[in-house]
Amino acid sequence: MSWLAPLLILTPPLGGPGGSTCGRAPLTPPYLKNPLFLKAYILTVGDEILIGQVTDTNATFMAAALNEAGYEVVEHLSVADSREGIMNGLARALESADVVLMTGGLGPTKDDITKKVLADYFETDLVFHAETWDRLQAFYRQFGREAAPHHREQCELPASATILTNLRGTAPGMWLERDGKVVISMPGVPYEMRKLVRDEALPRLAEYNQDDVLQRSLTILTAGAGESVIAEQIAPVEDSMPEHMSLAYLPDLGTVRLRITTRGTDEARLQAELTDVREQIEAIIGELIYGYGPKNLAQCVGERLLAAGKTVVTAESCTGGMISSMITANAGSSAYFLGGVVSYSNPLKQSLLGVKAATLKKHGAVSEATVREMAEGARKKLGADYAMAASGIAGPDGGTPEKPVGTIWIAVAGPEGTQTQLLQAGKDRKRNIIYTAHQALNLLRRVVKA
Amino acid sequence: MSWLAPLLILTPPLGGPGGSTCGRAPLTPPYLKNPLFLKAYILTVGDEILIGQVTDTNATFMAAALNEAGYEVVEHLSVADSREGIMNGLARALESADVVLMTGGLGPTKDDITKKVLADYFETDLVFHAETWDRLQAFYRQFGREAAPHHREQCELPASATILTNLRGTAPGMWLERDGKVVISMPGVPYEMRKLVRDEALPRLAEYNQDDVLQRSLTILTAGAGESVIAEQIAPVEDSMPEHMSLAYLPDLGTVRLRITTRGTDEARLQAELTDVREQIEAIIGELIYGYGPKNLAQCVGERLLAAGKTVVTAESCTGGMISSMITANAGSSAYFLGGVVSYSNPLKQSLLGVKAATLKKHGAVSEATVREMAEGARKKLGADYAMAASGIAGPDGGTPEKPVGTIWIAVAGPEGTQTQLLQAGKDRKRNIIYTAHQALNLLRRVVKA
Repeated sequence: MSWLAPLLILTPPLGGPGGSTCGRAPLTPPYLKNPLFLKAYILTVGDEILIGQVTDTNATFMAAALNEAGYEVVEHLSVADSREGIMNGLARALESADVVLMTGGLGPTKDDITKKVLADYFETDLVFHAETWDRLQAFYRQFGREAAPHHREQCELPASATILTNLRGTAPGMWLERDGKVVISMPGVPYEMRKLVRDEALPRLAEYNQDDVLQRSLTILTAGAGESVIAEQIAPVEDSMPEHMSLAYLPDLGTVRLRITTRGTDEARLQAELTDVREQIEAIIGELIYGYGPKNLAQCVGERLLAAGKTVVTAESCTGGMISSMITANAGSSAYFLGGVVSYSNPLKQSLLGVKAATLKKHGAVSEATVREMAEGARKKLGADYAMAASGIAGPDGGTPEKPVGTIWIAVAGPEGTQTQLLQAGKDRKRNIIYTAHQALNLLRRVVKA
Repeated sequence: MSWLAPLLILTPPLGGPGGSTCGRAPLTPPYLKNPLFLKAYILTVGDEILIGQVTDTNATFMAAALNEAGYEVVEHLSVADSREGIMNGLARALESADVVLMTGGLGPTKDDITKKVLADYFETDLVFHAETWDRLQAFYRQFGREAAPHHREQCELPASATILTNLRGTAPGMWLERDGKVVISMPGVPYEMRKLVRDEALPRLAEYNQDDVLQRSLTILTAGAGESVIAEQIAPVEDSMPEHMSLAYLPDLGTVRLRITTRGTDEARLQAELTDVREQIEAIIGELIYGYGPKNLAQCVGERLLAAGKTVVTAESCTGGMISSMITANAGSSAYFLGGVVSYSNPLKQSLLGVKAATLKKHGAVSEATVREMAEGARKKLGADYAMAASGIAGPDGGTPEKPVGTIWIAVAGPEGTQTQLLQAGKDRKRNIIYTAHQALNLLRRVVKA
């Protein structure tokens, strides 16, 4: 069923041995008062976080941005939309760090009290900020609406704050200082916060702190083996790394990202250290590596297709459009992705892809024979160099003793023939769909020669 | 272009006025020492969180589970994989709350030190737990592998801890008590942690605490209007709610969930309160409501199709499979979803959907004429009662002065004819894709009579 050499290490089935989500800790841990780094604190305000209504992706974004800029994030704390919660949080943050990035509590609705608490904490008054009101009125006018009276309240801001213009929304950011420490307060809307961090907070902090310590990292992207298997393989590399470097494992349903980080003051030396570790890892698990840096699997496979001047189409059953969705999430994918078919029903497998009625009858929709005909049919009917196909039982129901939930076939058809692979996944529908899409993309990666 | 009555309130374009992510705060806020509720604390351990490599979805899950069980989550704190970080975090958690749920730091890799710190904090020793070692060996054997020596270390556990069996992974959970307070430590792998919370932590806590205060909530799902517009419309309802009830707004790219929460000891009264507020809201924004409870838009539209005995197919260009992916994320969708076409290239729009070459030439791929032919072609060729179609410029590039990035046409073809709608979205590709999929599903919802 395969002319490809077996992968160095096979992926354990979903639901199999997992292990922790992180590798060796950075050896310059928080609380050790590493003099090289300024300490940063992330404080997010909002009942919606504490009642589990929203996932705090703002904290992730701020943590990554602060680390990239060379700060050490000592803690992340989420507090309630209450005066006591915010006061308490600010106290802990300013005790632990030099810079505090906080989000939330700046909207027009009544519970958003962050700025009032900030004014009290920094012993200043709220004053009407005419410039913000002008901007806010203009902001609404461009959408053919008028600023409402409750928006006027958003322009009452702490007198001692430097106002950071929010080009994507109504509530401005605020920069406040005390005893050489800085608190930057931003709205909780992710899209607004991100622009404020990138364009206002970080550039101003760089100027304010004049820090010359650098942090550099490199991410190696792998697919086809689990975290603990990779960890065992590259243990010698990890063990020989110098004290100021670290390695972290980030598994995600059939893929694992390895992030190498180093810190110091000499750019050339940091780059050389990263290159050295990267080359050692490549020598051991090179076949699993699909790319580097902040990219996704579909994007890297797309780059490979683009380089080879090849096109691809999809024929999806159990993945229901997830494979094409992952491909088209990347800008520019129309250069190599022509389209696809979601053949959820058997009649559409026949009419759109040319799967034979006899094949479906004899082997069933979830079978090597069907997935092969799906891939080959898509390649031919949609006119591409390659086609990926998937058919399986995503769950949670629909299994049989012979084909339990998680039985999934994938195939890649190309100029050299068709590869098929049987996956044995778990019972979680959403995980199975993403896992299958990753496996199909990885099979295509291995077939398309770079 | 539409025979449907215009929506009560139109959606502002993406990138338009946003507002905060949360409505009025619960009026029984944390720190007010509400005697009705036991306080809970969420403590997550892991450098990967503080460097922004992973989003802390564990915290969201635990927060929702604790709230549902009637706890008040006072704070969520993320600390580093260091002794000082964990000690410090435990101290704050036990000072602030009665119950601490913590995750992370229990894997086999060297940086995972939570259990050592827990043993010290609770003044107990680590002892070898033979039962866990037996389970672990059996666990690996079922995947045809052997437990490695470093897994044996995972069986060294605090002597005074009650061990919570982790059926989905290797590291067990631990229950530790001091001064009537409880710390439950669990592995950070989300899939393992979730099962431990549901099957071990919460049932044991219920028995331990014998709490008779109830929290009940109801979520109203809306699409077609922004958060601040809805907030203005239903302000009278919100203002007249009793003190112990709260309302939160959860916007997500063209949809807004409204969550009403109430607390007390009388089940019947709580249900009556929720019903009363729900009916008041329905009377004002009924047309925007697509469902109730923890459901997604695609699922609710699917239920409507199922009830009507109708089927649907998709014809996607700029959404690249996102619409079908949202539909098929729901188990049982094969009862109403037949399949779809991702016609990313113009030739596939013609060959798979029958879009006319003349239409593409005269109006372009992003036009009302093309999206109409896509929907009508899909409905006819794929043989369903309804078809959804989308074609647009998702961005970030590819716009022209006449059709800037974010210009997107959607259509729904059905037995009564075809509806089209022009969306004006922003420049963020991923947001535009999800927003468009939501709008297409909402257009279908309005067309299919319940």
